[in-house]
Amino acid sequence: MKYLSRLNQVQRQLEHDRLDAAFITHLANIRYLCGFAGSSGVLSFCRGTWEFFTDGRYAEQARKQIKGATIRVDALPPLAHASRSIASKLRRSRSASRIAIERDYVTLAMQTRISSELERATPKSRYRMVQTAGIVERLRIRKDPEEIDHIRKAVDLASSVYPKALSSIKPQATENSVAAELEYLARKSGAEKMSFDTIVASGIRSALPHARPSLARIGRGFVVLDYGVILGGYCSDMTRTICVGRADRAMRDLYSAVLEAQLAGIAAVRSGVAAQQVDAAARNVLRSHKLDKYFTHSLGHGVGIEIHESPRLAKGEAQTLETGMVVTIEPGAYVPGKGGVRIEDMVLVTETGCEVLTPTSKELVIR
Amino acid sequence: MKYLSRLNQVQRQLEHDRLDAAFITHLANIRYLCGFAGSSGVLSFCRGTWEFFTDGRYAEQARKQIKGATIRVDALPPLAHASRSIASKLRRSRSASRIAIERDYVTLAMQTRISSELERATPKSRYRMVQTAGIVERLRIRKDPEEIDHIRKAVDLASSVYPKALSSIKPQATENSVAAELEYLARKSGAEKMSFDTIVASGIRSALPHARPSLARIGRGFVVLDYGVILGGYCSDMTRTICVGRADRAMRDLYSAVLEAQLAGIAAVRSGVAAQQVDAAARNVLRSHKLDKYFTHSLGHGVGIEIHESPRLAKGEAQTLETGMVVTIEPGAYVPGKGGVRIEDMVLVTETGCEVLTPTSKELVIR
Repeated sequence: MKYLSRLNQVQRQLEHDRLDAAFITHLANIRYLCGFAGSSGVLSFCRGTWEFFTDGRYAEQARKQIKGATIRVDALPPLAHASRSIASKLRRSRSASRIAIERDYVTLAMQTRISSELERATPKSRYRMVQTAGIVERLRIRKDPEEIDHIRKAVDLASSVYPKALSSIKPQATENSVAAELEYLARKSGAEKMSFDTIVASGIRSALPHARPSLARIGRGFVVLDYGVILGGYCSDMTRTICVGRADRAMRDLYSAVLEAQLAGIAAVRSGVAAQQVDAAARNVLRSHKLDKYFTHSLGHGVGIEIHESPRLAKGEAQTLETGMVVTIEPGAYVPGKGGVRIEDMVLVTETGCEVLTPTSKELVIR
Repeated sequence: MKYLSRLNQVQRQLEHDRLDAAFITHLANIRYLCGFAGSSGVLSFCRGTWEFFTDGRYAEQARKQIKGATIRVDALPPLAHASRSIASKLRRSRSASRIAIERDYVTLAMQTRISSELERATPKSRYRMVQTAGIVERLRIRKDPEEIDHIRKAVDLASSVYPKALSSIKPQATENSVAAELEYLARKSGAEKMSFDTIVASGIRSALPHARPSLARIGRGFVVLDYGVILGGYCSDMTRTICVGRADRAMRDLYSAVLEAQLAGIAAVRSGVAAQQVDAAARNVLRSHKLDKYFTHSLGHGVGIEIHESPRLAKGEAQTLETGMVVTIEPGAYVPGKGGVRIEDMVLVTETGCEVLTPTSKELVIR
């Protein structure tokens, strides 16, 4: 039922925008709309009908997973197949047809392929390609109860492996081996895969927000662990920073300032608040500690079928938070040549505030 | 030196094609040309000069890794920054400038972003966007000795964990737990990451060429293991199929037919041979066993910085193999409702044939 309802919502939007046909090519959008979880396929809409095009490798999977769209399997590449089908449906239309393509995902080569298939069947004056953005993404931004349930399970699984992963952190261990343990535990607990490349950054490397695990030894100092899993098709994302060896005054102060900023960010989340206000709430705390210049990224992002979704919690983002959105709150402070701290939870936006989904403690762990 | 020489080769091609400027946006192409291994940046060429644009998060990494291009760091998104830089350089040109964009990687949204930045500075009549394909990919297709060395190490690492991974395969184990062991061993051995989502497909699921590991028990029958690692930025890819429990006559025949096809494919590889001939050599063996209808994918693909590169070894591919190409040879036969077998090695094309890089035995293992 959920797929039919989602397809109907998109259909209403397309009709409202006077779009006669649409190509849905982004796999996360396809999964959301009709349930297909494979890696090759195109969903199309044309005059009231949804069709899904794939090749023989995914025929069985498509039949099992897809609801609400007619399945078309062919040796032809799915995009060409979809284009031909739309062309044949629009051939007899009286007015010029407007065909939607997703501007954030359609490449120039894909556009050429679509055009050349359409032109075979239809004079160029009979259709117009219309670049659209966000039609499906706007629906995905608010999660329904079933999606929230999936996300909760992904969050809980990731959190559940954290204590064991911690025990692999020793001065002599490499960042890479800690990542290996963590991913192994996640997989063994049933994770379909990690939701992004695990970050394990130790010592002065903890000041690099996007460090990949290296063969460097953990040594002493901060260790940033940033990871997540996919379960039931939905992502989780969490970050904790611990300290190996002694934590001096400056390190404790840095940690508690970032934690204070994180709690301020969480406290600012509520349906009706602008995304930029939440970012500002956390950033202002870091400013009061003269640490805002070390907070070099945005505060958070939506999470769902993809690890990075709308909304962005950042400077200049006027988008209003709404109930059912799931976002990360992840301030950090990265002091070059010294080290960095980041603390990240996922939260569910509610009418009166938010529910913190990540159950893992944020007290500073010293090992 | 290698980066300078690669940049010079691209520059010669651009000049040959009368292109005054170019955007290189595909990260694998960027890495190949100037060494940058991060995940946000744009490399541009304009009138004899190479520039690399990134944001603050990658400034330090860019300075360490990049050779041959001037590094520009800004808060502006790299594509906008690159567009402005090119616009300002072309503003005073006398003739209309031709600007190359990679049609396989530039989305409609990116194209719009580039155009709008150019139009701010330059009248629209003063430049023309030219869609290009394969300018960098054609260089990447033949690997140099240093690249081959990286690939050998990635292949050897993946092969080295295979015997231990085998010992985790038991009837009671889940596909997912076998994948977990395998990836854990690879990571522990120093793999940067897996080169693609590991496939562990058992029993009748082995007949699904793209099965993701599930929580299903291994049980009895074939188990297909298809995995690879990234090491030094280069990918490996291998597949072995084993049998758990008794292998009956039909299973042994299926296995030996696929192995015979694989060996025939390898024997057909040589500099100067068309890719489709190699595919046909393997496919003909399966045909002689009446199994060609169960071989539903192409025979192989190039491997390098990306897991799937040119050339494709498939029907209709006229491209000629050349020394220095590294390709997979991976025939399979998938009998619906029964099970499937795939056997895959990586080989290096030489003047007189090929060198099989994958050292792992292909004798049928029964556990």
